[in-house]
Amino acid sequence: MEDSGFPLSPTVAFATNRMATEFAIPSQVESAATKMSEFVQFHSSAGRRVVLVTSGGTKVPLESKTVRFLDNFSSGRRGACSAEYFLASGYAVIFLHRHRSLYPFVRKYAGVNLLDALQTTSEEGSVTVRVEVDQKALPNIIHVLHCYQAVKKDRLLLSVEFNTLSEYLHLLKAAAQTLSPLGSKAMFYLAAAVSDFYIPASEMPEHKIQSSNGPLQITMKMVPKMLSPLVKEWAPQAFVISFKLETDPSIVVDRARKALDTYRHQVVVANVLDTRRGCVVIVTKESQTELVLSDEEILKEVEIEEKIVCNLSAAHSNFIEEQRIMTEQ
Amino acid sequence: MEDSGFPLSPTVAFATNRMATEFAIPSQVESAATKMSEFVQFHSSAGRRVVLVTSGGTKVPLESKTVRFLDNFSSGRRGACSAEYFLASGYAVIFLHRHRSLYPFVRKYAGVNLLDALQTTSEEGSVTVRVEVDQKALPNIIHVLHCYQAVKKDRLLLSVEFNTLSEYLHLLKAAAQTLSPLGSKAMFYLAAAVSDFYIPASEMPEHKIQSSNGPLQITMKMVPKMLSPLVKEWAPQAFVISFKLETDPSIVVDRARKALDTYRHQVVVANVLDTRRGCVVIVTKESQTELVLSDEEILKEVEIEEKIVCNLSAAHSNFIEEQRIMTEQ
Repeated sequence: MEDSGFPLSPTVAFATNRMATEFAIPSQVESAATKMSEFVQFHSSAGRRVVLVTSGGTKVPLESKTVRFLDNFSSGRRGACSAEYFLASGYAVIFLHRHRSLYPFVRKYAGVNLLDALQTTSEEGSVTVRVEVDQKALPNIIHVLHCYQAVKKDRLLLSVEFNTLSEYLHLLKAAAQTLSPLGSKAMFYLAAAVSDFYIPASEMPEHKIQSSNGPLQITMKMVPKMLSPLVKEWAPQAFVISFKLETDPSIVVDRARKALDTYRHQVVVANVLDTRRGCVVIVTKESQTELVLSDEEILKEVEIEEKIVCNLSAAHSNFIEEQRIMTEQ
Repeated sequence: MEDSGFPLSPTVAFATNRMATEFAIPSQVESAATKMSEFVQFHSSAGRRVVLVTSGGTKVPLESKTVRFLDNFSSGRRGACSAEYFLASGYAVIFLHRHRSLYPFVRKYAGVNLLDALQTTSEEGSVTVRVEVDQKALPNIIHVLHCYQAVKKDRLLLSVEFNTLSEYLHLLKAAAQTLSPLGSKAMFYLAAAVSDFYIPASEMPEHKIQSSNGPLQITMKMVPKMLSPLVKEWAPQAFVISFKLETDPSIVVDRARKALDTYRHQVVVANVLDTRRGCVVIVTKESQTELVLSDEEILKEVEIEEKIVCNLSAAHSNFIEEQRIMTEQ
């Protein structure tokens, strides 16, 4: 059998049981859940849609006192950038991201050493020293700062951080349960690069693996696919988008379609590692839409996430309308 | 046999051969070597000591088109912080660090969102908008900025970046060969968390490993210990410090001493994961010195790296003097 059986017949009970038994609840989940709940109440009473954007890679420890870990390639650029376009489209955003991955707005200056962008100035006769930004070093800073401050003033962006796979899984569950009361107005945009494999706590060595013991043999179990309980149990009425990243272009759309068949959510954004910044395919049960940046758009530094978010927020509007009609019938 | 034999009988040829055959030379090594060479010439003609500080963890790809990788826990704090104290002690510093790990001076503001620390101001009647730092958000910024600018003006700090283990190994070799002409005036402060294990390119799958194929089995080879060729071949007269990080306090000093016996370099800084910010042991062939922060020092936010660098730069002075006497005899 090519498939182990699990991804093709995911049972909600299996995934949630495994999560409960093999991933201890991290300490920060409770306070994060409270914050998310307040955030959702605030915006839902204003009639606003709320999207959960997940972003960045998950860390999978190989030792319980962790020195080594398995990680997934992800700067968090797609998630951070998409969050900005969701904000511009009127959504409130819960940004569930890997600690130190890229963050909305400030991500534009991720490559700049802050100290290279600052200078001290003082006015004649004054002892006050000011520290001022060299605006050439931080292009477009006034505009970006104003956007960020407007978002902050209206409390439209909530930051929640994870490091490990375990933290991610439990925070995702907490977020889903918080968003569930919004029904179809909640969107899940699951752009984080979540590990497919992990070592159960019970099988992990306590101390740092000694290199003097020779070559390293690692056996990792498959991570339960949380899309299953998310779609069927935690937030059954929400609009859910997952991502499928592959390095082999010949298999990516098939795998996206297979995921839709398996989990029965609304959209898979299919992308290939080498071309992911210029091209994605939006796959739904009924359609397959390729979004591509033209040469002109690339020159103008248009971001593919603008197109993705535009496509998905329109699809979300249709979804909300369909759900409304279905409920009325 | 507890040890596989390799770490106890490291041969220079074995390590350098393995490096040449299994780790392709990354494209950036040549230009980095040129920059390092100019830097060393500039400072050696001024009679200045030069230290290579390595910092941050190495990335070990599991696939050749990399989605997944093995990583080592390291923020790069120790390296970045030590580099500052070496600069304050009169050294010129080559800072060989993991891309996006902490960087000297600016590391003090790593937890701050830049956009939270900025505000726009404009003077009455002027159309010019300034962007100014809120100095409460970036404590001590004027002092830190002046230190950074002084270092920059005198070109005392050279930044060289790596991501993968392969990049680290080749850049270390290039740095060592560049520093070698300085003789005993060169110091190597090897604080980077280098992986002990890797997958040879020849055994790596090209594409992303499919989770549908079931549990993941990984077999990793041991990384050749480059301390061996560094000490014996690349820079035989230099003052070399390695680090030993363990999670088990009962074995750390023994392992440090074993490393000194094996590689015959000058110093191992031994530290334990949980207490590494408050306590280290400086191990040499003849001595064992514990450096500990007192409660008062912790309150005053003294950093253990200040003590480490103070101890090591004094030891380096003695070493230079001993070498001078030996050469004259």
